[in-house]
Amino acid sequence: MPLPTAETAAAALAALRERNPLVQSLTNVVSANFLTNALLAAGATTALVDNPREAGEFAGIADSVLVNLGTPTEEQARAFTAAVSNARGPWVLDPVAVGGLSWRTEIAHRLLAHRPSAIRANPSEVSALAGLESTSRGVDSSADAADSAQASRKLLDVSTAVAASGEVDHITGRAPDGTIATVRVHGGSAFLPRITASGCALGALSAAYLAVTDPFTGLLAAHAHFAIAAERAESRCSGPGTFVPEFLDALAAVTPGDLRRARIDVVEGG
Amino acid sequence: MPLPTAETAAAALAALRERNPLVQSLTNVVSANFLTNALLAAGATTALVDNPREAGEFAGIADSVLVNLGTPTEEQARAFTAAVSNARGPWVLDPVAVGGLSWRTEIAHRLLAHRPSAIRANPSEVSALAGLESTSRGVDSSADAADSAQASRKLLDVSTAVAASGEVDHITGRAPDGTIATVRVHGGSAFLPRITASGCALGALSAAYLAVTDPFTGLLAAHAHFAIAAERAESRCSGPGTFVPEFLDALAAVTPGDLRRARIDVVEGG
Amino acid sequence: MPLPTAETAAAALAALRERNPLVQSLTNVVSANFLTNALLAAGATTALVDNPREAGEFAGIADSVLVNLGTPTEEQARAFTAAVSNARGPWVLDPVAVGGLSWRTEIAHRLLAHRPSAIRANPSEVSALAGLESTSRGVDSSADAADSAQASRKLLDVSTAVAASGEVDHITGRAPDGTIATVRVHGGSAFLPRITASGCALGALSAAYLAVTDPFTGLLAAHAHFAIAAERAESRCSGPGTFVPEFLDALAAVTPGDLRRARIDVVEGG
Repeated sequence: MPLPTAETAAAALAALRERNPLVQSLTNVVSANFLTNALLAAGATTALVDNPREAGEFAGIADSVLVNLGTPTEEQARAFTAAVSNARGPWVLDPVAVGGLSWRTEIAHRLLAHRPSAIRANPSEVSALAGLESTSRGVDSSADAADSAQASRKLLDVSTAVAASGEVDHITGRAPDGTIATVRVHGGSAFLPRITASGCALGALSAAYLAVTDPFTGLLAAHAHFAIAAERAESRCSGPGTFVPEFLDALAAVTPGDLRRARIDVVEGG
Repeated sequence: MPLPTAETAAAALAALRERNPLVQSLTNVVSANFLTNALLAAGATTALVDNPREAGEFAGIADSVLVNLGTPTEEQARAFTAAVSNARGPWVLDPVAVGGLSWRTEIAHRLLAHRPSAIRANPSEVSALAGLESTSRGVDSSADAADSAQASRKLLDVSTAVAASGEVDHITGRAPDGTIATVRVHGGSAFLPRITASGCALGALSAAYLAVTDPFTGLLAAHAHFAIAAERAESRCSGPGTFVPEFLDALAAVTPGDLRRARIDVVEGG
Repeated sequence: MPLPTAETAAAALAALRERNPLVQSLTNVVSANFLTNALLAAGATTALVDNPREAGEFAGIADSVLVNLGTPTEEQARAFTAAVSNARGPWVLDPVAVGGLSWRTEIAHRLLAHRPSAIRANPSEVSALAGLESTSRGVDSSADAADSAQASRKLLDVSTAVAASGEVDHITGRAPDGTIATVRVHGGSAFLPRITASGCALGALSAAYLAVTDPFTGLLAAHAHFAIAAERAESRCSGPGTFVPEFLDALAAVTPGDLRRARIDVVEGG
């Protein structure tokens, strides 16, 4: 199978709606509600089983797992390991603020040893995770998505696909046939970085797609789904507050036919 | 006093608005914000005092207590016991995902020994709690509300009223005069299961009503209040995202006169 | 520099939009999402770094710190101390439900020893914090903002400015030239107390303003910004649910020119 395209992303959305996968989300407190509503709207479901007594057990049931490092606690940190060690399906790492803060950077590096199926982050987190120079400012991104291409390639040593989400998303991955490439997703909305947890929800949606397709296609489909929904929501809202409910409506309304028209291009051939 | 009716539910709403009860909510991180806004809209108030150092103290002040098992932590688990042991008023158990996960199932069984005033759950959780066979899929319900009638009856050994919330809600309880029956609430919206924490908010609203009326009437009033608000919100929204703010508006706008016209019937006489 | 005015509040808003300060928020689970969206809308940003391993580290990076006592955990309580001990910028204390509950009252008194740059609370919490008689009912306020003036004055022993937020906000502070006064902010909306975490978000916005101006002006600007946004949102919503997205839109839309017309008066000269 060659590189993912708008066509294979559309097929992934059809599969998502058909199978309604169950994602186990170990995530931060800021994102908990919005991320769950985003998954329900898009066509998946999630349960936040993030205590160390049940996380491994549930990872054996869930179709995929999201690990988001936004607001770690001691219990959650142990649950991360339990979940990724016992996951029966793919898992996605969202290394929030890695590089800028020490504990979560240690956690992230330990988790990398468990080989995440995919990684979704902002460009500066991708760079930090790859051990490259980074100038993270808390949870914001100060690097450009394009600049993180080298870091993304390096992370393919431990993962199958890496998304550096930004104004233009850069998704670098290894296709099922072994082809390595970076695919860009255009579109989206300037409101996305003005609402909290949009990146976290995108990481969770990525995990949902990985339950129904390969990691490279899954990241592409999740980012294209988000970008199209964000464009629509922007045209119907009057500010960042009204953007949120419109965006959730739009996540639900996007169809495979819409994804087929996603603005995607390949920046580096395999 | 015989079985609860639309008329007694309407009286309960009038009492809720008059007394504005204070609910102590020990709940999951996904629901925290929405549940609180739902209570404020409906006519109650809540504080999430869920640490073991203060939970018992606050349970001696609060008008009622909600215990929701959605995302338990070690501290919260100790707080559950402290709260229900010291509650000066009624308390409601919402056994999220019980049966599907081991730790919370243990917690739930320990809490049952403290005899919850009422239980609100989805049908598969009601069945699991009663020790009956269950096929829970995370936080979703795979059993039908009607099927859980036998389980609900069994739970009346430890509680006064049990709601199996679903497309049609089945509320089984013991009226103040000793009559046992199952009352159904019709209505609601297909959007309710498509937004997160709607069941959690319904559990909290149940706790609010229990502060102003008997458990059987309280569960009925809470479910009827929710169903009517959901119908209105559905007629004003364009998807699951815009449903949320419309639903909160509708919770605030429902009047005792509306509840008097709730679609309620008795499926098994006492 | 004399007392803050609508003019200096307007200048503070211009500085906020120019500098987009990064606030470290150690806050409760109910407020996490709304507070973050409120800061993003208003013109700041925030990260909820509230674990004891990273809180001190991040306080050395953040432009200001918010400590909100709403739902403390053992880890968060240690993180509070780490953050305020290492803060490179100003910090704001929001002593939720202090006086009514024992553990957080102890925490608050310990934190006062670290001299918060400003305090934002409801009137009964201000009174409790000052060691005066209080009749707090959970997180609600039972005292009038005007009544807390004496308590606010007393708290100037440990802080530079104190806001007792209410129907009319009373802000007592010491101006940079040493003048002590109480300034009132009129306006706002009856919907503000009907949505959860509005006070918490106001505390966070106060912390954002303190990163760009002195504490007295910062509290005044935050309260005026909130009051004007709330008035606009009220005119565009149909209930407490639709108020929330409209309020976030309005926080983003308020300009320095709007703040220049804020309804502010001085009740006690310096």
